[in-house]
Amino acid sequence: MKIGMIGLGRMGFNMRERLRRADIEVVGFDPRPEVTDVPDVAGLVAALPAPRIVWVMVPSGPVTQSVIGELAGALEAGDLVIDGGNSKWTDDTAHAAALAEHGIDFADCGVSGGVWGLENGYGLMVGGTDDAVSRAMPVFDALRPAGERADGFVHAGAVGAGHYAKMVHNGVEYGLMQAYAEGFELLGAPGLVSDVPGVLRAWTNGTVVRSWLLDLLVRALDEDPGLETISGVVDDSGEGRWTVDAAVANAVPAPVISAALFARFSSRQGDASPAMKAVAALRQQFGGHAVHTNTEP
Amino acid sequence: MKIGMIGLGRMGFNMRERLRRADIEVVGFDPRPEVTDVPDVAGLVAALPAPRIVWVMVPSGPVTQSVIGELAGALEAGDLVIDGGNSKWTDDTAHAAALAEHGIDFADCGVSGGVWGLENGYGLMVGGTDDAVSRAMPVFDALRPAGERADGFVHAGAVGAGHYAKMVHNGVEYGLMQAYAEGFELLGAPGLVSDVPGVLRAWTNGTVVRSWLLDLLVRALDEDPGLETISGVVDDSGEGRWTVDAAVANAVPAPVISAALFARFSSRQGDASPAMKAVAALRQQFGGHAVHTNTEP
Amino acid sequence: MKIGMIGLGRMGFNMRERLRRADIEVVGFDPRPEVTDVPDVAGLVAALPAPRIVWVMVPSGPVTQSVIGELAGALEAGDLVIDGGNSKWTDDTAHAAALAEHGIDFADCGVSGGVWGLENGYGLMVGGTDDAVSRAMPVFDALRPAGERADGFVHAGAVGAGHYAKMVHNGVEYGLMQAYAEGFELLGAPGLVSDVPGVLRAWTNGTVVRSWLLDLLVRALDEDPGLETISGVVDDSGEGRWTVDAAVANAVPAPVISAALFARFSSRQGDASPAMKAVAALRQQFGGHAVHTNTEP
Amino acid sequence: MKIGMIGLGRMGFNMRERLRRADIEVVGFDPRPEVTDVPDVAGLVAALPAPRIVWVMVPSGPVTQSVIGELAGALEAGDLVIDGGNSKWTDDTAHAAALAEHGIDFADCGVSGGVWGLENGYGLMVGGTDDAVSRAMPVFDALRPAGERADGFVHAGAVGAGHYAKMVHNGVEYGLMQAYAEGFELLGAPGLVSDVPGVLRAWTNGTVVRSWLLDLLVRALDEDPGLETISGVVDDSGEGRWTVDAAVANAVPAPVISAALFARFSSRQGDASPAMKAVAALRQQFGGHAVHTNTEP
Repeated sequence: MKIGMIGLGRMGFNMRERLRRADIEVVGFDPRPEVTDVPDVAGLVAALPAPRIVWVMVPSGPVTQSVIGELAGALEAGDLVIDGGNSKWTDDTAHAAALAEHGIDFADCGVSGGVWGLENGYGLMVGGTDDAVSRAMPVFDALRPAGERADGFVHAGAVGAGHYAKMVHNGVEYGLMQAYAEGFELLGAPGLVSDVPGVLRAWTNGTVVRSWLLDLLVRALDEDPGLETISGVVDDSGEGRWTVDAAVANAVPAPVISAALFARFSSRQGDASPAMKAVAALRQQFGGHAVHTNTEP
Repeated sequence: MKIGMIGLGRMGFNMRERLRRADIEVVGFDPRPEVTDVPDVAGLVAALPAPRIVWVMVPSGPVTQSVIGELAGALEAGDLVIDGGNSKWTDDTAHAAALAEHGIDFADCGVSGGVWGLENGYGLMVGGTDDAVSRAMPVFDALRPAGERADGFVHAGAVGAGHYAKMVHNGVEYGLMQAYAEGFELLGAPGLVSDVPGVLRAWTNGTVVRSWLLDLLVRALDEDPGLETISGVVDDSGEGRWTVDAAVANAVPAPVISAALFARFSSRQGDASPAMKAVAALRQQFGGHAVHTNTEP
Repeated sequence: MKIGMIGLGRMGFNMRERLRRADIEVVGFDPRPEVTDVPDVAGLVAALPAPRIVWVMVPSGPVTQSVIGELAGALEAGDLVIDGGNSKWTDDTAHAAALAEHGIDFADCGVSGGVWGLENGYGLMVGGTDDAVSRAMPVFDALRPAGERADGFVHAGAVGAGHYAKMVHNGVEYGLMQAYAEGFELLGAPGLVSDVPGVLRAWTNGTVVRSWLLDLLVRALDEDPGLETISGVVDDSGEGRWTVDAAVANAVPAPVISAALFARFSSRQGDASPAMKAVAALRQQFGGHAVHTNTEP
Repeated sequence: MKIGMIGLGRMGFNMRERLRRADIEVVGFDPRPEVTDVPDVAGLVAALPAPRIVWVMVPSGPVTQSVIGELAGALEAGDLVIDGGNSKWTDDTAHAAALAEHGIDFADCGVSGGVWGLENGYGLMVGGTDDAVSRAMPVFDALRPAGERADGFVHAGAVGAGHYAKMVHNGVEYGLMQAYAEGFELLGAPGLVSDVPGVLRAWTNGTVVRSWLLDLLVRALDEDPGLETISGVVDDSGEGRWTVDAAVANAVPAPVISAALFARFSSRQGDASPAMKAVAALRQQFGGHAVHTNTEP
């Protein structure tokens, strides 16, 4: 089997490598000459046997939209495009429609695993027709972890279902991370536990809370037991927001996932939160409580 | 009527004044010579006709406990002590018992109104026996706002009920303040509203959200429209914590009050939150996401 | 002055009345013959002197969109349409554009006050040009509460700013209501407070938490002290959702407003929450904890 | 090695079995004749060589306190008591002191693993002196999972640290479970994902969210794909509450863990939540919104 892959960044580069190790031929395109196999998308298309499979692994939003648009013009009827990036699931319908005008099929694939996927395999959640999924199954089998297919791969539903499932996956991830993080802070808070990293490590085997994220937290604490080199200012990457939006749209209570998202928002405000300034101002007004001021009196 | 008042700080000082304006004689004691009427508690007791009423208005916890202990020794059977401070309601039982050994009655009174109470009157929530409440009613009537008694005063129940009601009042206050604060931040966030203070002021009449706290927020914005001199670092004063504890103990869901409390906790952590450092560390581990570091590479 | 009003439901009917009491002539249209002044929109337009002002007070979404579309065809250049309904602020741009094609001006006006507005006046938040706002000022002055204009009216910004401010107003309202509600439940929880409605009533004067919503809660408890005739199943009307969406879009932490929204979502699930079923199932799996089952064994 | 074990319920019974498989002799006592090895505590003490080790595995609170008291009278100086139950960490100090009066040492051990511990081993978090921990190490080694000791065992600190760490573990567990639960509900909400259990199973290998709890959720869905036989009414067992209390006491923001706890509280209220009744009553008051009533009009 021979497929194309557009986007050879942190994720796509490793995925090309994992596919090649599984004897899938990959023609990769990326604007960076040091990683690309072909000079442009036209070259990629020309290098693939029809009907082609092209895996798109570029930033979600305008970049993905642009690549889909380019492929709509460059590919032929019967080809298949798989968007493996972190696209918003609501974008998939438009992308599928744009390609369908040219007879090109589309599937969306949520990919989880981060930098560890090269060795461990990637968890895959796919949306699309049975036919599209069947055609690309050797690719999915090469990318997913070894073992039972159903333990690392799912055909989640029609177009959009893969990215929707990946979005929820990331929302859950926000909640899990925050739960461990609160536990980490609580362990250290009263000064009773003399070996906080040791407690977390002890949780990695036998306990109810053991998980891969916990293993990673232990790893991070091995490198920096007090996390002193790391700032508690945390970005978010979009999928947590979409998950909360989906909760609101579907009237699903999501207090944990939203709390995790808001904790990240707050972490970026420091002492400049307009809301907390308003609370401080109110306390000063009604009670004469001292406020922390930004100016010397 | 003539009563004693122990503690002439921000609250007690004004309450003495309001009582005097209502022709209630007040003998005040405070360690600060510039405000006290008598040199010590013994002097206060000596200056009051039996059966005495002594209002205690000192910081909750050890200070209140100490004053109650001193009064247990200095007063006589038939006297009445009213704790008007922000004592934890669970302290009231012990205080009542310590006084009861000497035949002294006890009532607890939650007092709301802050620095505005001198002019507006104070909202009062009282716990104790019918007899204790009746005896002190002229005092309560002088302190509470003018108008219907039931609109600013309640005999909430037995000993402890007054402080419990005041604790819940403050918990609600946390939630209200945070709700307005989030609204304030949201009004300004997208840059669409050109007059955020004007919107808040327009809410003060006719709308569903009009309230005294909103009036205070408008007042604060009059003084500093961007709240630029105020830091978003907010203290908490204990009663919010007790309210969440009470919610947990009684299996009452309190997502709003607890969120308001946690927002204050977070506001004091800046970029040093151990929990958010853990989240940042996790993101770095699994995804190679950049972290905000505290050290130059 | 003579204006048109389309939509004479719970809000519009009372607003027509309030305008008339202020000697503003109102030609109202509503599909219900028993309340309408004219048989159709054409009749309404014909009855107004140019340049016309037409106030739209119909359900947000498709109905408002349809009425705007009809007015775009029926009105003339120089006329002014004011959308006083609860439209999503992002709809305003499209409505303004549709009208602008015909030279018709547009302003959006968030209206608060509910069924009490007829007597008390309505809080108004307006978006639009200075010119549009000036032209309609007699209408706004008649609708808003008596007293200072700035205490019940604001020109919040350009088109959309009025509805945006009203949306945030409603989001804040969700938070305030939930804060009082948690307090109400907490007051009754441990059985210590013997007069819960009395405590709430005592909060209405002098305390920090006094507000119009609190007055309404006292009123509701007057009618039904245990709220026994009311079910704890609560609907939501859209603006709370939009507020959370706006918080997410602007990276504003909104833990209180979102908690209030999620509490309503949860209230509608009873024991059928898929999430809580999953938690119950997990507890059963790892701990052998008994679950509440829907079937007899 | 030969030790005593008091309490042979769901946990203690299996732990005795796991210890015996590791060639540790165990004399078990339980009030139930069908499982006990000796008729009473005196018999258990008599059956053990001095210095003795007695593992207590009974319900936390009064039962544990009673057993500790009985052991204080029955054991000898130099013996060691280990409380392996889910005691509140603040109880440990009193228990240690009561035993220390008789020269008896004490250690507290948080035990995780549930019904799966017999086969997998139990995660152990221990508080106590180095000496106590060393003496009991063969017991800990037999109970913990195979593999590196530090991956399933930690000497967390002085007396109390073991139960404190276990309490935080359970708090984290609440957060993790709720995160997965929200994800489960979100997956099914819009009807886009045709195979929700399949998605969860696909998450078990390769993804960022893989964990033992996820494996259990997949297992539960294997048995009942729609969780139709399970009610969404979820109990809580105390440690989640203590964790929130600890967060409040230490000013640690814990929005996720508290949200998970409150979700359980709410799940038990159905439509009888006083708070949500209050919200419904407020909506009716200000807006004339229909309420869900408990009575026919």
